[in-house]
Parts: sequence; C-alpha cells; structure tokens
Amino acid sequence: MLGSLVHVGGMPLQDALARRAVDDGALLGEELLRIGYAGRARVGCPCVDSFVELHIEQGPVLDREGIAIGVVEGVQGICWTELTFTGRSNHAGTTPMALRQDAGMAAARVAALVHALSQRFAGRQLATVGALTLQPNLVNVIAQSALMTVDLRNTDGALLQQAQGALLAGARRIAAEHGVLLSHRLLADFAPVAFDAALVDSVERAARAQGLSTLRLPSGAGHDAQMLARVCPTAMVFVPSRDGLSHNVREFTAPEQLVQGANVLLQVLLERADR
Amino acid sequence: MLGSLVHVGGMPLQDALARRAVDDGALLGEELLRIGYAGRARVGCPCVDSFVELHIEQGPVLDREGIAIGVVEGVQGICWTELTFTGRSNHAGTTPMALRQDAGMAAARVAALVHALSQRFAGRQLATVGALTLQPNLVNVIAQSALMTVDLRNTDGALLQQAQGALLAGARRIAAEHGVLLSHRLLADFAPVAFDAALVDSVERAARAQGLSTLRLPSGAGHDAQMLARVCPTAMVFVPSRDGLSHNVREFTAPEQLVQGANVLLQVLLERADR
Repeated sequence: MLGSLVHVGGMPLQDALARRAVDDGALLGEELLRIGYAGRARVGCPCVDSFVELHIEQGPVLDREGIAIGVVEGVQGICWTELTFTGRSNHAGTTPMALRQDAGMAAARVAALVHALSQRFAGRQLATVGALTLQPNLVNVIAQSALMTVDLRNTDGALLQQAQGALLAGARRIAAEHGVLLSHRLLADFAPVAFDAALVDSVERAARAQGLSTLRLPSGAGHDAQMLARVCPTAMVFVPSRDGLSHNVREFTAPEQLVQGANVLLQVLLERADR
Repeated sequence: MLGSLVHVGGMPLQDALARRAVDDGALLGEELLRIGYAGRARVGCPCVDSFVELHIEQGPVLDREGIAIGVVEGVQGICWTELTFTGRSNHAGTTPMALRQDAGMAAARVAALVHALSQRFAGRQLATVGALTLQPNLVNVIAQSALMTVDLRNTDGALLQQAQGALLAGARRIAAEHGVLLSHRLLADFAPVAFDAALVDSVERAARAQGLSTLRLPSGAGHDAQMLARVCPTAMVFVPSRDGLSHNVREFTAPEQLVQGANVLLQVLLERADR
C-alpha cells in the first residue's frame, strides 16, 4: 500500500524510503536495494489505465455465507485515535470514591461507550478498542494513567465522522467526571473510497458468467486499489478466507477458490482490454 | 500482617515461612533467618491482653478535613477477584460486529459495571479495577484475551457480598453477550472486622483529653490489628497522611502529628493497664 501511495503522489518517495519497520527497525530504502526491488522508473510511471486487485477477503463473510466471489464496492474509511488519560495513583482501600482521579476507570467507561456507539451507528459501523494499558496495573492501586486506542471504520464517511465526534465528546465528558486529563491524537484518518461503478459491475458480470455466486461488500482492510483509485478506475475481487483468518499461519483459501478468483480477474481485464 | 495472621492461628507457620516475595522471589523463612528475626517463641506466645495499633491513615480523609486523630472503628472487608475473558483474535477492519468474540470489549464493559456498582452501593462501597491487560493489545486487532482485577471493599460484609454477587452475575451476562469465555478466581476474601467498642471509646477519650480533634472512620487498608482482633480486644489510632499518600517516597506525616498519635496510644495503654 505504501508503494501505491507513493505511485499516486500521496507521499514523497524519500519519505517512503526513510520508513523503518516497527519490529526490527529495518529501513525500507535499504531493504529494497538489498532484495533487488529498487527500480529505476520515475514515480507515477508507467501510467495505469485501470487497476483490478485480486485478494483474499481477510474476513469471515464469504466463507460463512458460502459465496465464491466478493464484488468489492470500495474500501471503508478508517479513523484511529489514541486516547491518553492521566489521573492520580492512589490506594484502592483508603481513597474514597469521590476523591479519586481514576484514569483506568475513565478509560474503561470510554471503551464501553465505543461499544455503545457501534450499536447506535449499527449498519456498517465497526468499532474496536484493541489496546488498553493501565499504569501501574496493580490490583490495589488506582491507575495513574491509561492509554487506549479506538479503531472506527465505516463505508459512509459522514457517519464515520459523526461516530468520531461522538467518541471525542463522550471521552471528554467521562474524563471530566473522573477528574482526569484527556489528550488524544489521530493515528490514521482515511476517508472511504468508492471503486469505479462500471468496473465493479464488470467484476460481478465476469463472476456470474462463470456460474459463480457473488456478494457485493466493502473491503474492511486497506489495499493498493484504495490508493490507485485516486488516479484511475479501480475495483477488487475477493475470494473467501477460511474462518476469516488473515495475517496468521492458519490463513487458508482452497486452490479451486484461488483459480475462480484468478479467472474472474482475467475476464475483467480482457473485457477492459476489448473496449 | 502475615506474622499476625500466623500468631492468631489463621495460617500454619510453615505456609508462611514458605511464602516468596512477588518481586524477587525471596523466601520469607530464609530472609527472617538472614536478618536475625527468626525467633524461638512458640506460635501464639506471648498471650496478648489487648492490641492497639498506631498508624498513618494511608488515605486523604484526616488530612483533607484537618483532623488530628482518626478513631478507627474497624477494618473494611476486602474481596479481590481476577477475571479472565477468552475470546478470539481477529482483524478489526474485516470482522463484522456480530461475528466478534471481543475479550477486550467484554472486560471494559465489566469494568464500567464495576463503576456502576460503586454508585449503586454508594456509602462506604469502594470499587477499583486496578489491572486490565489485553492480548495482543494492538490497535487493529480484536483482543484474544483480557485479564482484569476487581477490588471491592465495604465495612458492611453483607453489602460487600451483594456487590460481589452483582459483579459476577454481570460479568457472566456480558461475557455471554460477547461470546467469550469467562473464568474467575478469588485473590483475597476478608470479612470486615469491628474493633472492640470499649477500646475504640478509649482512643476517642484519650484524644479528646489532649484537646485533639477526632473522626471515627474505618481503615481502608489491612493491618495487624485486623488479625489480632480474632484473639483479643483491638483498636487503632490513625494520624493524617499528607495528600493521602502511602507506599510512596512522598509519604509524609509531620513530627508533631506523630507525637500526638503516640501520646494517644500511650494514654489508651495506661488506661488499659489501670483497669
């Protein structure tokens, strides 16, 4: 995705080459040279007519529904927020409830609010608190601080912004109730991307022509096609992920399902080439 | 407190000597020998007539109210529970809300319930979620598991048991709503202890005779007196803790406050000796 972002002019080449891996700190530019992938083409070349991407779903929907081909209509918008609550550490047995500045309790209540938001916005609203860390994290000590992340996603950009607004307003209110300081920063903020309607129709047509079952759905994860959508007509073809597993050694898609996906991709490109 | 518990017959001596420190794993029996504190007296000897303990409050009430002497009526009951939620790790962007088994969200909602319980039981009910740990604790990964602790305390043993019952019932319901497994274990369970009414009165009398302001209050923390109360009349004298700080390098009680506390203790013991 980073390469695609650079290709479409969304990030300067030098910034991308200077990126380091989170785990071992490897420098992207050095690693591309080392493995022989540092090409000589100018950024943005060659010019792309259209971009169709075949991918495993990385989610459980197709597998669960027994559908062969996912016709991807776009990529949902993503809003990642890191919230930091700073209170005051104190003895859990001797500090009256009214005198506490409990950062952990404030964070937990905001996480519960995130759950409530997922129900209130329902539909295609996804809401996750993946990380939540208390300090000092001891049974009988009121937490001094809490660090949590909120991952909100929606195919509807306006709803996503509403949910994000409700999150921040609720977090401020709850932090004030507990007398703790709240700070936040956006870790990621991508608007939803809608793929090219004609190309999406072409994916559906190609699948049906081969007698394959289809389902229109958004992509939950980010993809190169999301970046290329800035410069050319774009679409995606999904094949099922067993149990929805991805980025996991147990990730699996049967060979015949891969063949079906590849054939749909081929037909879409042939149709596009015949225009 | 452990020594007092052994003294009153609440724990076998060998079990206490075999205890290891949480931080460096040091064996209690070996450390007592090393520092010359492994005495030869039989457990339970000498027989104690009464036990009056002078201590800093370790809480903010006396300091905040400007009271010189806390007349401790007893030690509140403590119930520590460790809750483990086991769900299924999955991609935060591709897993529909209805197909999630989000251990982190279940835990956060139970923590919010703990807050609600503290308000529902109000009065002298204390409720703390000091520790909450998610795995894998990543922004875009639904938590596979969550480990949290709940510290409930109340001077009223029946209310404490009601709150504990409401906690476990609520945790089971929330875990079921999220499709996650819940297991729990009690880390500590001490019923409230009421000190000897005559001895408590004696503490109050001694303080007032010296012109000191007093406040009757329970002890939030555990103390030796709580253990000795099983075998003899017991009471405690509290002096203020500045800002309620305890187990902290900034813990402070002014020398004159310490003297006031020591004089109250002395008068109580003199009165007891004069019976």
